[in-house]
Amino acid sequence: MSGPQGFMLPKSPGGRASIVPPPPWHYSGDVLTVEYRTDPANVAALLPEDVGLAEEDPGAVALIWADWQSCSGSGAELLDPVRSQYKECFVVVRCTYGGETYSRCVYIWVDKDFALARGWYQGYPKKLGAIWMTRPVTVGRAGPRLAPGGVLGATLAANDRRLADVSLTLTGESETGGFVNALPMLHSRWMPHIDPSHVASLDELVTMRSQDVELGPAWTGTASVRLYDAPAEEMARLEPVEPIAGFWRQVGATFTGGARLG
Amino acid sequence: MSGPQGFMLPKSPGGRASIVPPPPWHYSGDVLTVEYRTDPANVAALLPEDVGLAEEDPGAVALIWADWQSCSGSGAELLDPVRSQYKECFVVVRCTYGGETYSRCVYIWVDKDFALARGWYQGYPKKLGAIWMTRPVTVGRAGPRLAPGGVLGATLAANDRRLADVSLTLTGESETGGFVNALPMLHSRWMPHIDPSHVASLDELVTMRSQDVELGPAWTGTASVRLYDAPAEEMARLEPVEPIAGFWRQVGATFTGGARLG
Amino acid sequence: MSGPQGFMLPKSPGGRASIVPPPPWHYSGDVLTVEYRTDPANVAALLPEDVGLAEEDPGAVALIWADWQSCSGSGAELLDPVRSQYKECFVVVRCTYGGETYSRCVYIWVDKDFALARGWYQGYPKKLGAIWMTRPVTVGRAGPRLAPGGVLGATLAANDRRLADVSLTLTGESETGGFVNALPMLHSRWMPHIDPSHVASLDELVTMRSQDVELGPAWTGTASVRLYDAPAEEMARLEPVEPIAGFWRQVGATFTGGARLG
Amino acid sequence: MSGPQGFMLPKSPGGRASIVPPPPWHYSGDVLTVEYRTDPANVAALLPEDVGLAEEDPGAVALIWADWQSCSGSGAELLDPVRSQYKECFVVVRCTYGGETYSRCVYIWVDKDFALARGWYQGYPKKLGAIWMTRPVTVGRAGPRLAPGGVLGATLAANDRRLADVSLTLTGESETGGFVNALPMLHSRWMPHIDPSHVASLDELVTMRSQDVELGPAWTGTASVRLYDAPAEEMARLEPVEPIAGFWRQVGATFTGGARLG
Repeated sequence: MSGPQGFMLPKSPGGRASIVPPPPWHYSGDVLTVEYRTDPANVAALLPEDVGLAEEDPGAVALIWADWQSCSGSGAELLDPVRSQYKECFVVVRCTYGGETYSRCVYIWVDKDFALARGWYQGYPKKLGAIWMTRPVTVGRAGPRLAPGGVLGATLAANDRRLADVSLTLTGESETGGFVNALPMLHSRWMPHIDPSHVASLDELVTMRSQDVELGPAWTGTASVRLYDAPAEEMARLEPVEPIAGFWRQVGATFTGGARLG
Repeated sequence: MSGPQGFMLPKSPGGRASIVPPPPWHYSGDVLTVEYRTDPANVAALLPEDVGLAEEDPGAVALIWADWQSCSGSGAELLDPVRSQYKECFVVVRCTYGGETYSRCVYIWVDKDFALARGWYQGYPKKLGAIWMTRPVTVGRAGPRLAPGGVLGATLAANDRRLADVSLTLTGESETGGFVNALPMLHSRWMPHIDPSHVASLDELVTMRSQDVELGPAWTGTASVRLYDAPAEEMARLEPVEPIAGFWRQVGATFTGGARLG
Repeated sequence: MSGPQGFMLPKSPGGRASIVPPPPWHYSGDVLTVEYRTDPANVAALLPEDVGLAEEDPGAVALIWADWQSCSGSGAELLDPVRSQYKECFVVVRCTYGGETYSRCVYIWVDKDFALARGWYQGYPKKLGAIWMTRPVTVGRAGPRLAPGGVLGATLAANDRRLADVSLTLTGESETGGFVNALPMLHSRWMPHIDPSHVASLDELVTMRSQDVELGPAWTGTASVRLYDAPAEEMARLEPVEPIAGFWRQVGATFTGGARLG
Repeated sequence: MSGPQGFMLPKSPGGRASIVPPPPWHYSGDVLTVEYRTDPANVAALLPEDVGLAEEDPGAVALIWADWQSCSGSGAELLDPVRSQYKECFVVVRCTYGGETYSRCVYIWVDKDFALARGWYQGYPKKLGAIWMTRPVTVGRAGPRLAPGGVLGATLAANDRRLADVSLTLTGESETGGFVNALPMLHSRWMPHIDPSHVASLDELVTMRSQDVELGPAWTGTASVRLYDAPAEEMARLEPVEPIAGFWRQVGATFTGGARLG
């Protein structure tokens, strides 16, 4: 007999108890991106050995909020939306490895455990946080329209401390949703040895990219960013020195797996 | 000088600390409604003295989920969306008072304190709960489209117990979003005396209706409902005996105040 | 028949759905108090008309954290502790009214709805917050002992922003748990008219004091306080100018009701 | 240069951003244990290949609630208790491997991310849940005393559904806190390959036991257990067929690491 089943832990007789079902994982949601430049040394300080700064615009940072609905292949979670919806805030930089340029998520916070587990599988270094983003509306006075002059806010907190606030004032439609998070991801997967004096049990570089990407119309605008320090965080070291732009769009995508690079 | 300021408590020197700013309160959001019939005796058991059953369809019940963005007149909360967004699930019946027919909210759960306080002001008998509803999507595979065959779920829990689940399968567009919650509200405002042996300090019937209602296209469909009992709840007494229909639409509205009736 | 029942809303056929059962309300918990002096003008700015500053030490403030287990007369909530346990952080000053000196809670945050509703009934101006306090321990290394040198921390956040941090270093046992919150309470109960252009529907001064108070040994020490400003808060105006002392003790008490004064 | 630092992800320039600091991890808390027997086939269905049922009492299950304060070697988290306190509910069985008998955690829910990450490191298959347990008290009427006749409740929920309720009526002091969770742990550490069609990237059997265990007085009593099924859970398969006993005690312990077995 093959024992209990499950894509991740906990394994159980029917395989239903796993913290997350197996891929494919489908995503549909709203994505707000604020891109800015920091001192490239701040980016370099986040890259592992053998990974270098991007050649062009090496100090570019994307601070991204997303409000997702997600599901596995069966779609069953969609009718029990507590298991389907989550929000996240993440920080992406670019880097080079083996002659290729990649996007790389260096910090990320989510508000559900299934999303956290997917991240640990994919090399997104997820922690829990409280994430909020203004929704554009089409009726009523309680929200901006997707139109020039519309203003969207987004906030991140963890451990009862505010970590980031942004606001984005839309100026018009856009061809793109930003360039920092537009490349295949280069992520580290890492698990220390159960005896902490030994070398890590899992220490990999992996790459992945979304499948079946479906994009709604993109909007761009001007953004302001404030980062706040906290005892168990270092995101505020990525101090903005020059704004690039902000973006908002709806995104659909599917994740089916990645590949190990090193 | 007249002392500390605030629409509600706490009052403070600048009036900023009130649990909610003064009206107008603007709302924009998604509303999912499931209407069904229960034994009219179950509705009658929820009505105060002097308030009677509706003459037509007296056992009609609307179970409503809403995912709101809301703000006060300044709109300041929209850029700090933790103070702007909330979800609610509420139960509405119809009733008669003084020869008029009204809608009446008999149970309601929200997930933010500012929304709870607005309810206690308006006679919505709000408690805290965990509320989730499927979002229709326009890109990707992680959600239904607003189209025939699309299926939406919604759930309610409080005190770590599931209280209600519904699912709504869309069949087509609709002229209406339902009839049970379509009338002016007849609500009770109630505060016991600080000496519980005395008659209540606040015991009013009030009415109110939304202003500047702006409606998106409505969709209708067939719905299923499950209600679960719990130690400190009685919603499950409103047992469904016959489905009516379900609805989904986006709604914008403004609240500026109501009127005392009795 | 007299219609649906309940101490507070929602009223229901069996009276079980009320956001809180009727008094008596019993409390057992840990209480950490930090007392300091602010400019008395900061206290005066929080007092309603006809209420004056205390004659002695008018700028004294108590910042109090409590981790409560509570129940109604039946004790039923104790076996479903999600409905029994809550934490709170509150700010107390002293004041005079009608020739008597009272304690008065000017700001308070709790983390459960039943506690919030009890506050709105009692004139505690409750909002929701995230409240944490170090627990003294008797085994293991993950906590201070109740002994000289033990250090306890406590924090408050609301709307994803840290509002207050304190730390208390114990110096020895104490005869008292502080003097600022030791008098009968003078509270305002307030509900605006449903038509905001009219005078309030409920505008009372009430007093109350705990019954059957049972106190554990008290500890005192030296404390530090940091208050942080936030858009919808004004607690930070109560700026500390001089420390008094800190205290920790376990407290049991019962609330059965109060009396209206004005 | 050695790149960004951290015991777990995310790695950062100063090593402070890791979801959890490195061991040692100290724990002090209250532990409520309910032991019962299920059909041994239900236990066998949870054991991996090469791991067998315990020879004696193979159907014994411990359902354990713990309310912990925890910290790393510096103790810094103790003064910011949002990063120190958490609750957990877990299920332990016994098993044999390589001729030795072990305890094994098959399901576990916690309410903080740092605790979840420690579990993924240690092979505790942690998910997020809502966990509550009655606290014994020494003053006031809002809780049981640690004395014969005292009754304690404990509950578990996840994804807005109640999963387990227990109550424990104390009968007297005890020499032990139970036998099911008293052995060294045998855990699986597991991470699927980034390409799900490949064999797992991390698939280990590890063992660990607490250091410097310090125990408070133990109490025993009679317990009742109710388990509830849910779409993404299988704990309810561990159906009780015979009670053993319940226990309550305070526990202090330190984790410094474990050893790989297979």
